[in-house]
Amino acid sequence: MKYIYFFGQGKADGGKEQRDLLGGKGADLHEMTKIGINVPPGFTICTEVCSYYYENNKTYPETLKEEVLKNLHKLEKVMGEKFGDFDNPLMLSVRSGARVSMPGMMDTILNIGLNDEIADSLAEKSDNHRFVYDCYRRLIQMYGNVVLGVSHAKFERKLEDKKQEKGVKLDTGLDEGALRKLIQDYKAIIKDFPESPVDQLWGAISAVFESWNTKRAIEYRKLNEIPDTWGTAVNVQAMVYGNMGKDSATGVAFSRNPATGENVFYGEWLPNAQGEDVVAGIRTPQPINIIQKGKSELSSLEEEMPEIYKQLLSIRDKLEHHYRDIQDIEFTIQDKKLFMLQTRVGKRSPIASVEVAVDMVKEGLISKEEAVMRVSPQDINALLHPMIDPKTKFTSIAKGLPASPGAATGMVVFTPEEAVALKHRKTILVRLETSPEDIAGMAACEGLLTQRGGMTSHAALIARGMGKPCVVGCESISINYEKEQFTTGGTGFQHVAIKKGYIITIDGATGNVIKGDIPKIRASATDKFREILSYADEIRKLGVRANADTPDAAKIARKLGAQGIGLCRTEHMFFGEDRIKAMREMILADSEKDRREALFKLLPMQKEDFKGIFRAMDGLPVIIRTLDPPLHEFLPHQKEQIKELAQEMRISEDVLHAKISSLSEINPMLGHRGCRLGISYPEITEMQARAILEAACEVQKEGIKPIPEIMIPVLAESKEFDNQRKVVDRVANEVMEKYNMKIEYMVGTMIELPRAALTADQIARTADFFSYGTNDLTQTTFGFSRDDVGKILPDYIQKGILKHDPFRRIDEIGVGDLIKIGIERGRKTKPALEIGICGEHGGEPHSIAFCHRVGIDYVSCSPYRVPVARLAAAQAALK
Amino acid sequence: MKYIYFFGQGKADGGKEQRDLLGGKGADLHEMTKIGINVPPGFTICTEVCSYYYENNKTYPETLKEEVLKNLHKLEKVMGEKFGDFDNPLMLSVRSGARVSMPGMMDTILNIGLNDEIADSLAEKSDNHRFVYDCYRRLIQMYGNVVLGVSHAKFERKLEDKKQEKGVKLDTGLDEGALRKLIQDYKAIIKDFPESPVDQLWGAISAVFESWNTKRAIEYRKLNEIPDTWGTAVNVQAMVYGNMGKDSATGVAFSRNPATGENVFYGEWLPNAQGEDVVAGIRTPQPINIIQKGKSELSSLEEEMPEIYKQLLSIRDKLEHHYRDIQDIEFTIQDKKLFMLQTRVGKRSPIASVEVAVDMVKEGLISKEEAVMRVSPQDINALLHPMIDPKTKFTSIAKGLPASPGAATGMVVFTPEEAVALKHRKTILVRLETSPEDIAGMAACEGLLTQRGGMTSHAALIARGMGKPCVVGCESISINYEKEQFTTGGTGFQHVAIKKGYIITIDGATGNVIKGDIPKIRASATDKFREILSYADEIRKLGVRANADTPDAAKIARKLGAQGIGLCRTEHMFFGEDRIKAMREMILADSEKDRREALFKLLPMQKEDFKGIFRAMDGLPVIIRTLDPPLHEFLPHQKEQIKELAQEMRISEDVLHAKISSLSEINPMLGHRGCRLGISYPEITEMQARAILEAACEVQKEGIKPIPEIMIPVLAESKEFDNQRKVVDRVANEVMEKYNMKIEYMVGTMIELPRAALTADQIARTADFFSYGTNDLTQTTFGFSRDDVGKILPDYIQKGILKHDPFRRIDEIGVGDLIKIGIERGRKTKPALEIGICGEHGGEPHSIAFCHRVGIDYVSCSPYRVPVARLAAAQAALK
Repeated sequence: MKYIYFFGQGKADGGKEQRDLLGGKGADLHEMTKIGINVPPGFTICTEVCSYYYENNKTYPETLKEEVLKNLHKLEKVMGEKFGDFDNPLMLSVRSGARVSMPGMMDTILNIGLNDEIADSLAEKSDNHRFVYDCYRRLIQMYGNVVLGVSHAKFERKLEDKKQEKGVKLDTGLDEGALRKLIQDYKAIIKDFPESPVDQLWGAISAVFESWNTKRAIEYRKLNEIPDTWGTAVNVQAMVYGNMGKDSATGVAFSRNPATGENVFYGEWLPNAQGEDVVAGIRTPQPINIIQKGKSELSSLEEEMPEIYKQLLSIRDKLEHHYRDIQDIEFTIQDKKLFMLQTRVGKRSPIASVEVAVDMVKEGLISKEEAVMRVSPQDINALLHPMIDPKTKFTSIAKGLPASPGAATGMVVFTPEEAVALKHRKTILVRLETSPEDIAGMAACEGLLTQRGGMTSHAALIARGMGKPCVVGCESISINYEKEQFTTGGTGFQHVAIKKGYIITIDGATGNVIKGDIPKIRASATDKFREILSYADEIRKLGVRANADTPDAAKIARKLGAQGIGLCRTEHMFFGEDRIKAMREMILADSEKDRREALFKLLPMQKEDFKGIFRAMDGLPVIIRTLDPPLHEFLPHQKEQIKELAQEMRISEDVLHAKISSLSEINPMLGHRGCRLGISYPEITEMQARAILEAACEVQKEGIKPIPEIMIPVLAESKEFDNQRKVVDRVANEVMEKYNMKIEYMVGTMIELPRAALTADQIARTADFFSYGTNDLTQTTFGFSRDDVGKILPDYIQKGILKHDPFRRIDEIGVGDLIKIGIERGRKTKPALEIGICGEHGGEPHSIAFCHRVGIDYVSCSPYRVPVARLAAAQAALK
Repeated sequence: MKYIYFFGQGKADGGKEQRDLLGGKGADLHEMTKIGINVPPGFTICTEVCSYYYENNKTYPETLKEEVLKNLHKLEKVMGEKFGDFDNPLMLSVRSGARVSMPGMMDTILNIGLNDEIADSLAEKSDNHRFVYDCYRRLIQMYGNVVLGVSHAKFERKLEDKKQEKGVKLDTGLDEGALRKLIQDYKAIIKDFPESPVDQLWGAISAVFESWNTKRAIEYRKLNEIPDTWGTAVNVQAMVYGNMGKDSATGVAFSRNPATGENVFYGEWLPNAQGEDVVAGIRTPQPINIIQKGKSELSSLEEEMPEIYKQLLSIRDKLEHHYRDIQDIEFTIQDKKLFMLQTRVGKRSPIASVEVAVDMVKEGLISKEEAVMRVSPQDINALLHPMIDPKTKFTSIAKGLPASPGAATGMVVFTPEEAVALKHRKTILVRLETSPEDIAGMAACEGLLTQRGGMTSHAALIARGMGKPCVVGCESISINYEKEQFTTGGTGFQHVAIKKGYIITIDGATGNVIKGDIPKIRASATDKFREILSYADEIRKLGVRANADTPDAAKIARKLGAQGIGLCRTEHMFFGEDRIKAMREMILADSEKDRREALFKLLPMQKEDFKGIFRAMDGLPVIIRTLDPPLHEFLPHQKEQIKELAQEMRISEDVLHAKISSLSEINPMLGHRGCRLGISYPEITEMQARAILEAACEVQKEGIKPIPEIMIPVLAESKEFDNQRKVVDRVANEVMEKYNMKIEYMVGTMIELPRAALTADQIARTADFFSYGTNDLTQTTFGFSRDDVGKILPDYIQKGILKHDPFRRIDEIGVGDLIKIGIERGRKTKPALEIGICGEHGGEPHSIAFCHRVGIDYVSCSPYRVPVARLAAAQAALK
């Protein structure tokens, strides 16, 4: 059993494929060595030792000690130095390295191998006494802190005392004598610093393994679903020093600009310094090259050490070609000699992610498939909305659910009417929750903040549909409409009162609420953005449609790549000022005749809407859903408004109150809605079918190709569908005869109740298509009201009862099982059945992957999620 | 192909097993002939001819004519008469007869074979001219009406005219001359009466087949799910005459008393009459025997024709032994000779049904299994409640859903407070709908009537639980609380205003609402009632438990045969006057500490409840469900009550309003309830677990054996269960340690959400038992709110979209499929998993049969349904 892998002198036992065994850092050190890059030689103790350590009561394999010694000797030989030797001592660094980078674990101990005697001997021999004692001082400090667990602050205090005593500002101001005194002080703190270099080495190795199970590391693994069994490797390397004098230096760099993606070498360096000095921020790092320098007075590495810079550039090219991705590197220059200490894939901004992926395809470095996998759906989403500038520091006063991405700043208003009145100014509409009556105010404001509701509440749905920033379920604010203010508070937030007219910023991507204005950046849709999505389109199997209710939304959706409309909600059309009146007349009608009269007024308006949508979607399918919400949603509920309406309708307030109360329901979600309305009042379905088919005929005359698909919602039983389909088919025939035209149309249904999924075999007998309404299906499968779940879900996720909000990410084992049952049974009856999904999940990447796996034909999501869905669908196809 | 089956002279081509082919009436005529009973000979044209007739454009099989003639000749030979002969003519009756008796179809045409000439010739020869012309008159009238479709009224008018002309009151008063004139008048009406006897016969046969497809017959078949393809048979028989003089008679009888079940021959007869005279009610029928005669002055058959009566008694015995059930017979005595015209299984009252079944077991006539199949669950249900005396005639003023059986009469009151105030008098509480606050009034009233709500609304559930008559969803009444009255109206009902204080009667078995008092009968639980159920207990595989929330209910349940409690709803315990205060303190508490204090007050009360229940259920399992409803159900909603509560709790009204509004939910059915409450406030579950376990320990000390099973409701995810089970187990251990006792307890869960059924494999890992909550499972699977579905379901059933109310009878294909999935997945994890059902369906016979088929262990229903469930479970096992 081989536990240790050696690297050095152009040869290495391991390579980049062995991340599992050698950890990420180790594997890349081996790889760099192998491809001829100058890396300080050393060896890696593999992750299996870590596993052994924890499985065997914190002991090591029997042979490990011997293997360490063997590799140490090999290293001594390569370096021509000897560990623990007075004359020519080898010094070592010890670093941890798991498969994936993991905060909370031990990072590094440098300068292992020094003790009092060796330091003195070394100092005597070298011409740089200060350097030697500084190294020794650092070793004790790191060892004490990391291995022995002594608080960092204790060492810092001594260091500060010493600097004050000497009247200097920087560590570098301390001379040899001061450092030697400091070493004594440090030793007094930690007491049992091992003088034996070998003991130091084993202490450091054990510390790395121990750090695998610190509380922070365990929590991080839990959050990121990293198995505890993976373990960490340990990298032991010969020391190189960037702090040996003016010909030494240290630096970090990215092979391309990680913020913009520009193909320009980008980094920082510090002359005469060790790596930690760059991180510590005591001295200002200098630009790596002239391009980057700009107007700065700090000199660049390119100017100071042109030869070394040239070497570095060539290594950058070599690494990028070898790894085929942006590299994030660390280097040290010791006495004019360049050593690479690390290379890893560079983290980048959303825009850089897209730019680099497309550039690398064009450079022939990677395939289109790889490019698609390199960009995350979050990147795409972020690029579609204005974002808070990542460089800005701020304190949020409250945090809610990130319901619709983008940042918005405006004056706080508490009523939709105010938002409308202040349309010319930017406002943030703050509400307990929103209702369909608020629609005008929601359209007028810059962003929305609600105290209640979840990711699929009315506010969230509408805001996402409008592409408007929105934070919902912000339970840490408390709104007082009378006082026209809200207050903040709760765990982690300061107590602030925000009055009407105050300026706030909301970030719909994070849920943050911030007082005042905050700088924002807008990463507009670039050519490369379009290009990466065109790659995705070539790869994906899933179709992508949009949920759009208006011609404008349909246009945006098409521009963003939608291949049709997966859901057009006709009820939103009824809330317009000109329509709500006729709608209310219809609802308040006492007879079918009066209802028909009111519907007759709505018909031309609906028809115009549909014509606009058909024109925008020329040649693409448009699924139009018949009336869905319960009728009481269209009636006012406040006393003043009821009075007004009664006057308008010329009926008594009592009669109106009675009507409203007779329509009110205890559980409207499970009430008289969807096809249940169409069955009670077939004339509604009839009017809608007529509007759709007449619109189709009229645009077809213009040379447009309409593809209407009429969708019946809230189905629990196939006979409900048969009832409604009969109405639609009859009207369609009448209209086509009247216009003397043929329209290809389909009639299908939402599958949004468990019983519809369970009886899909029966429904598929007469339905032309299915569309999963996963919002309602999630509500009924879980028994969760999306309007009320705000009280429950955060607690459930915090307690680990649910891993994810099932309204955001599809619940695969419950709701997903019903979806699978529905697909299987539906296709058993009708193998070619078109099956889509139009719930909010249609724009969520994990859910999209699920849809791909279970054989759904297309997803449909809000227009601004279409690009995200296109990418996610391609990634699902590649996985 | 043989189409016709002959019977006569002790021989018959068919028998009682051939009901499909010969129809019910025909099969029994053949059977009686075969077993030596004197039946007028004849033949049956089988049902296949009817099918042929409709499949072949209303034509007959080629060979039929010949076959009819052949059988007619056979009949002539047997009778020694000739069809259409002047001297010795054969007369025939033609009767329809489907597999099952079917109203709306043609019944009978008598005296076929007479015409002017034959009548005259016959009259000449006989010494009874009047009899002959009366027969002829009847033939023309029946033929005209039934075959030719002439309105009955036209004939009746002529008959009346004639009687007036002659100054007589009864038909029998008309002499030969008058009858002959009447015959001419009749012929003038119908014009084309066929003089040819053969034409008459074929006309009658066709009329029978035509009557299979009258509108009424088709509707009846649709309602009763009788296939259109079954068809009817036609029975052609030689005529016998009960109206030939003083030695002739006719009658109908039951082999036992069909009202009481008493083993006494029971019937009516009329001397010198034809069957239709008995039905027409012109003459008062006379008692058949001395026992039945009582104080009547009418003489019995036993007295008038003792010899014939003896023959009849012996036939009665023979038929009962042969058919092994009550027989409903028709007979005719022609000139001292007894003929049997029909025998069939006798319809009987619920009480007779039980009495006869048990008696016949004791008489060795039938097995216990047969006895159990003879009694219907409806019979059992009816016997448990007072019923409106079936002899009473009444007009209902409105009709709602029959929510809880039994009839009740009382003064109308509109508030629960009034019901309580008038506790000493009988009241009917009339409400729009009820809420938990109304519980005291519901307990105080005699019966409940609600305008809204379905079969599983709050009112229906509570009323069934209390065994109290209840009519719900009575949409044809309109309540006006201000005016303290309700009005009736709507299709089929008169418009009446019923004010507070008026007396009404409601019938919870039919849904009828009647003005005033109505006589009722109470069929109390007899020994035979208990005996039939003991047979059922021997046969059934399903356990039967009761849903009971109080010690009293538990006692009743046990008395009615419950084998444990399947559901004890703890929340109902919190509505008592002494408890609601502590409950409200708990809800209004701002901290866990305050909540615990309030819960501490509830603990001893809950404990006492449980002790009472454990004592009542000594040695039997008791499933106790932890808190289920959302907390806002415990708070008042009316302004006055809120004010009062605020004063009582010493908080401001504003604060109370805010709390109530923060707890209010848009869809409470899908809200913060069940285990979601227990997860938010573990101290509630803790208190309940403590009360249950302490109660168990304390009664165990008394020598009682408690078997507590704690049930966690509203589960969607196994981790919710794990969370709550942990609390219960911890408390259980604490309590058992404190009392130094061991209690065998289980912790299980309700399966009442689709996701619970779908993830049953995961839940079964830690749950000891499942209980299907089919009410909520139906709500979520269909997306039907049971509180709001009253508007939808009646329409759906009327339109044929749903066959049954899924809240009454389990929806096998949707909800049932989820139940099967849950059972399969649950038992895959834990093969011995105990699975029950505690929804309302647990007491509904079809649903019980479903439970039996899918392998459920027990059903649980309201105490008063327990006997019904015991019977239904046995019947399911036998099917």
